[in-house]
Amino acid sequence: MENANFRTQILTRHLQNHAVDSSSGAAVSRAPCLSYAPPEASASFDVSSMRKLMDGHNLGERDWLFNLMAQSKLFNPRLRGGKVFVAPDYNQSMEQQREMTMKRIQYLLDRGVFEGWMTGTGSEAEMRKLALLEVITIFDHSLAIKIGVHFFLWGGAIQFFGTKRHHDKWLRATETYLMKGCFAMTELGHGSNVRGIETITTYDPRTEEFIINTPCESAQKYWIGGAANHATHTVVFSQLNIEGKNEGVHAFITQIRDADGNICPNIRIADCGHKIGLNGVDNGRIWFDNVRIPRENILNSVADVSSDGKYLSAIKDADQRFGAFMAPLTSGRVTIAVSAVYMAKMSLAIAIRYSLTRRAFSITPNGAEVLLLDYPSHQRRLLPLLAKTYAMSFAGNYLKLLYVRRTPQLIKTLHVVSSGLKAALTWHNMRTLQECREACGGQGLKTENRIGQLKAEYDVQSTFEGDNNVLMQQVSKALLAEYVATKRKNKPFKELGLEHMNKPSPTIPSQLSSSIVHSSQFQNDIFCLRERDLLNRFAAEVSKYQAQGESKESAFNASYQLAEDLGRAFTDLAILQTFVEAENSASDASLKNVLSLVRSMYVLVTLDEDPAFLRYGYLTTENAAVVRKEVANLCSEIRPHALALVDSFGIPDAFLSPIAFDWVAANAWSASQD
Amino acid sequence: MENANFRTQILTRHLQNHAVDSSSGAAVSRAPCLSYAPPEASASFDVSSMRKLMDGHNLGERDWLFNLMAQSKLFNPRLRGGKVFVAPDYNQSMEQQREMTMKRIQYLLDRGVFEGWMTGTGSEAEMRKLALLEVITIFDHSLAIKIGVHFFLWGGAIQFFGTKRHHDKWLRATETYLMKGCFAMTELGHGSNVRGIETITTYDPRTEEFIINTPCESAQKYWIGGAANHATHTVVFSQLNIEGKNEGVHAFITQIRDADGNICPNIRIADCGHKIGLNGVDNGRIWFDNVRIPRENILNSVADVSSDGKYLSAIKDADQRFGAFMAPLTSGRVTIAVSAVYMAKMSLAIAIRYSLTRRAFSITPNGAEVLLLDYPSHQRRLLPLLAKTYAMSFAGNYLKLLYVRRTPQLIKTLHVVSSGLKAALTWHNMRTLQECREACGGQGLKTENRIGQLKAEYDVQSTFEGDNNVLMQQVSKALLAEYVATKRKNKPFKELGLEHMNKPSPTIPSQLSSSIVHSSQFQNDIFCLRERDLLNRFAAEVSKYQAQGESKESAFNASYQLAEDLGRAFTDLAILQTFVEAENSASDASLKNVLSLVRSMYVLVTLDEDPAFLRYGYLTTENAAVVRKEVANLCSEIRPHALALVDSFGIPDAFLSPIAFDWVAANAWSASQD
Repeated sequence: MENANFRTQILTRHLQNHAVDSSSGAAVSRAPCLSYAPPEASASFDVSSMRKLMDGHNLGERDWLFNLMAQSKLFNPRLRGGKVFVAPDYNQSMEQQREMTMKRIQYLLDRGVFEGWMTGTGSEAEMRKLALLEVITIFDHSLAIKIGVHFFLWGGAIQFFGTKRHHDKWLRATETYLMKGCFAMTELGHGSNVRGIETITTYDPRTEEFIINTPCESAQKYWIGGAANHATHTVVFSQLNIEGKNEGVHAFITQIRDADGNICPNIRIADCGHKIGLNGVDNGRIWFDNVRIPRENILNSVADVSSDGKYLSAIKDADQRFGAFMAPLTSGRVTIAVSAVYMAKMSLAIAIRYSLTRRAFSITPNGAEVLLLDYPSHQRRLLPLLAKTYAMSFAGNYLKLLYVRRTPQLIKTLHVVSSGLKAALTWHNMRTLQECREACGGQGLKTENRIGQLKAEYDVQSTFEGDNNVLMQQVSKALLAEYVATKRKNKPFKELGLEHMNKPSPTIPSQLSSSIVHSSQFQNDIFCLRERDLLNRFAAEVSKYQAQGESKESAFNASYQLAEDLGRAFTDLAILQTFVEAENSASDASLKNVLSLVRSMYVLVTLDEDPAFLRYGYLTTENAAVVRKEVANLCSEIRPHALALVDSFGIPDAFLSPIAFDWVAANAWSASQD
Repeated sequence: MENANFRTQILTRHLQNHAVDSSSGAAVSRAPCLSYAPPEASASFDVSSMRKLMDGHNLGERDWLFNLMAQSKLFNPRLRGGKVFVAPDYNQSMEQQREMTMKRIQYLLDRGVFEGWMTGTGSEAEMRKLALLEVITIFDHSLAIKIGVHFFLWGGAIQFFGTKRHHDKWLRATETYLMKGCFAMTELGHGSNVRGIETITTYDPRTEEFIINTPCESAQKYWIGGAANHATHTVVFSQLNIEGKNEGVHAFITQIRDADGNICPNIRIADCGHKIGLNGVDNGRIWFDNVRIPRENILNSVADVSSDGKYLSAIKDADQRFGAFMAPLTSGRVTIAVSAVYMAKMSLAIAIRYSLTRRAFSITPNGAEVLLLDYPSHQRRLLPLLAKTYAMSFAGNYLKLLYVRRTPQLIKTLHVVSSGLKAALTWHNMRTLQECREACGGQGLKTENRIGQLKAEYDVQSTFEGDNNVLMQQVSKALLAEYVATKRKNKPFKELGLEHMNKPSPTIPSQLSSSIVHSSQFQNDIFCLRERDLLNRFAAEVSKYQAQGESKESAFNASYQLAEDLGRAFTDLAILQTFVEAENSASDASLKNVLSLVRSMYVLVTLDEDPAFLRYGYLTTENAAVVRKEVANLCSEIRPHALALVDSFGIPDAFLSPIAFDWVAANAWSASQD
């Protein structure tokens, strides 16, 4: 009834305000009845300062690259509602998308984007490279992955596993794309379990050559980005068999195409075919038919073979040797985790801007329809994800610094933190993309509006470079190993952020109040309590199974429920601590004020959503009710800052999408006639 | 170390078993080292009986249609690993996919698939139609939607809103595709809020014509499936303005293209463009420029306009009139909910079969690598979703029967149940697709393996024909209305499954045991307890807000947390009750035995995952621990039945995907040369 009255009013207004075409009998003329109003700006803080805190580094170079892409026809600019948007044309076939990706790389190369990516040294060069890759991923994941495979995987393997002879020959050539590299590790039969790969390399001392062979179908290299169309060289990972003894996985350089793009002799290549996303990357499969390569092509920083065929390695233990080969791959997890956060930012910027301009239903008899973001339930859908994205953005910045400043002492921490954050941040991104897509209704399904397409493009992140579940288990195993070793030595904890376990267990007040749950002390305490308790429980359960005669591996596998809870507890705490640090480093009080709301939301919504807090008794039901109420309160407190918080992401309008702006104009008949 | 030893053994075996090519120095020959072994069959029950229980009806006709599709080149058959698979080519452009979809419809039409879809009467005809649509959706969502728009939306509107003159003219013509219909309800500015649409229709008594007009850009019809390319006619939903008074939303038939496909005068049509899925459906936008249609074209079962321009309706109340127009749309929610369950079945059949043939890591020094489904954590990922899919499949069958046997008395129940199940089943499907995609690792991303692509194709389900969140709120509002009315009358509850509230509140034992949690009595009790308690809490909170002066609508909006919990409680209970009924109807003990495990899993994993049980005290932490342990136990109890449980879905091999079968052969070099 209320709506009917409201509609009548609107119709009456039409009839009164507009000329009547009496000849046709039509009682209304064509005029906008529901018009677009831009979101109300109400920033309580300086958006550019917040952006600086969020992006963290290389802001000028980011903006330079954004502009470079937005200016070129190669980046598919389209006019919608008076604004230009750039995004790939995903209605192109796989083959077309691949060629466009290669053309875009050439364009960026010609303009100096990759300058110093292989030959630069020091943490500044690394941070610049990471910043530019983040900007590229905002345009298109295929473009970022194709570049990432060439520089971070192929180039990284040369840098980390190679020695001077390889560096001299390949680093500059890689930087200038004199050749195109790929990275052949995964096989059809073995992905996560790299040690199980079946490619075999032997050595022929007579010719001083290695012979690389694919002994069976399951050993075919699989998912090799760049292999299907463009790559000329690859790093091959293979078992190395010397004098009848398997020395484990090693890496070798092999040419797979000549400069004209013809596949080399004894190499066979097939396409991985169409994928649900990332179709701009030419993933291929490779078979090696006793391919001979010079002895110098072994990447010999970890181990080598002498000209007369003796195996040489400074590292005697095969496990350690394997670990040395894997450690530099951390760069992959770092870039994946950080790019996941940027996609969450993209989708939230779009969905929140839309929710500030789209109305549905009125709740008072004569009132206007209500903005989506003024519905408490819509706030609850988007604002906690916004808070988590802030938290994870700070965690991503921390992870990048940990990576570029890595020392041998920090390798373990880096491995554990990057594993946990890669899993947590990519899962968060997929959840955020899904919620934002649904929050935009049908508009979220239009490819031009980006969010829906991002789901397909980024889905790969939860399983590549380590399946998230496997990574989380590795986190818990590492924590347990640290726990057992520390207890055995009867010494204080001093690694992996477990130092809090040296102190007495924190006490959670029996009656929480709004002011308590907002304090960072309480927030830190309850996250520490959870990690400590779950680690104790996990250790107890594993040793219980071992006491029953189970192997360590079986005991781990049987304790998966606690292992998962513990992995989450570790990453949530690590994220909170980076948030607190970022908050402390914020330049002024207005930033600190809004960040403290956002931090509280991050913690409280975690308490509200994860049943572990109630299950293990860290929260009583009464305290859980206080938390739940506070989440709803925080929604309305953060609501006025929502626009400024997403504007602080620093993503230029052209890289967002039409529904983030005047979507009525973007959908006008006149716009469809361009 | 263990792995290194294991690898050495395998390599040694290669060296011993295979001829050495001494001339090249290669120590191994090409032979399968990791070979495919089909999953071990160990059915403890009759798969065909279970299939009968699951599919429920029209099994022969389903198989007939599966075969019809598998036989035709139009359905894109491809040979992989010695088996033929059918699936659309999603590497085609939107334009190509649309044309293929239309060709497939013609093929099905020519073979009599649609016989009786409009002219048949009775529940048998309706069930046959639903069964065939389910089979079609298993091949491709675009094909099902394009057919669904023509028959269920256009055709349904003619059936339900039209009268004899419309039936005579259109039903047979629709069934034989003499014309192609679409359904123009949604506008750019209004989707969920249909009452807010802005298209205006007036009446000209001089010519006895209606005049349909799009007064502004936000009133353009949007997402109209079929409009962009193929449809010749549409049902237009529009405000009806008679003698200056708005009578609310009514439906009219309008021709939009002539038989040659030319757009009619005063109609403008634009494309909705590329979408993340469903690109075989030509969604379009329509503007009406004072389009004149004969008076007879109003669908007049609810209301009419006399030749001299008087508004006539048997239903005086505008709200009721609006409700009468919306009620028949329930068919959309029914088919969406049911097809969502079939997609969950598809993805579980594929992921579980893969997990029974794919191995990763060994856990004993000399052991083989472990099958994915033998990892407790992998069981925990897939088997609870399998149990939920069984439960929801039974709920889908119940919903279909409720729909085809609908009576005026059941309209409210049908509306509430179909709203809740549409939301629950489509959300479950998206979650299942995502988990199955990740459980298949990279293989889940290959389009040919279906699961990943299904995510994009079915994502639309959570927002079309009613946004899931809005639908769930409607469920809670309906329950509250029933609650308030019943309390006011001081009578027993007798609708919407609330009858259990007439009895005393069930008591949950203070100490649960394994045998208690397996009993259907306990399971029903705790679901009833949750619904009862949440309904009481919701009613109390809404009236508290109203007592503070809030409007009913505002009070609802503020109580969204409880509304969401209550909506879930209602649907979970409804699903459980359909499960128990199906279990009771099962033909033999072996079926009943496995179904009781599956039912327990469905309930216990719900208790484990939804924090509401702990939050509101339905479970103590001790009891929650019992439940959690039992979920892990059930995983290993269901594991031996997993293959038979997915085989019971009755989906022919050709409609699954290569990784569900011999994926080594499917990826062999020889297969890539076809």
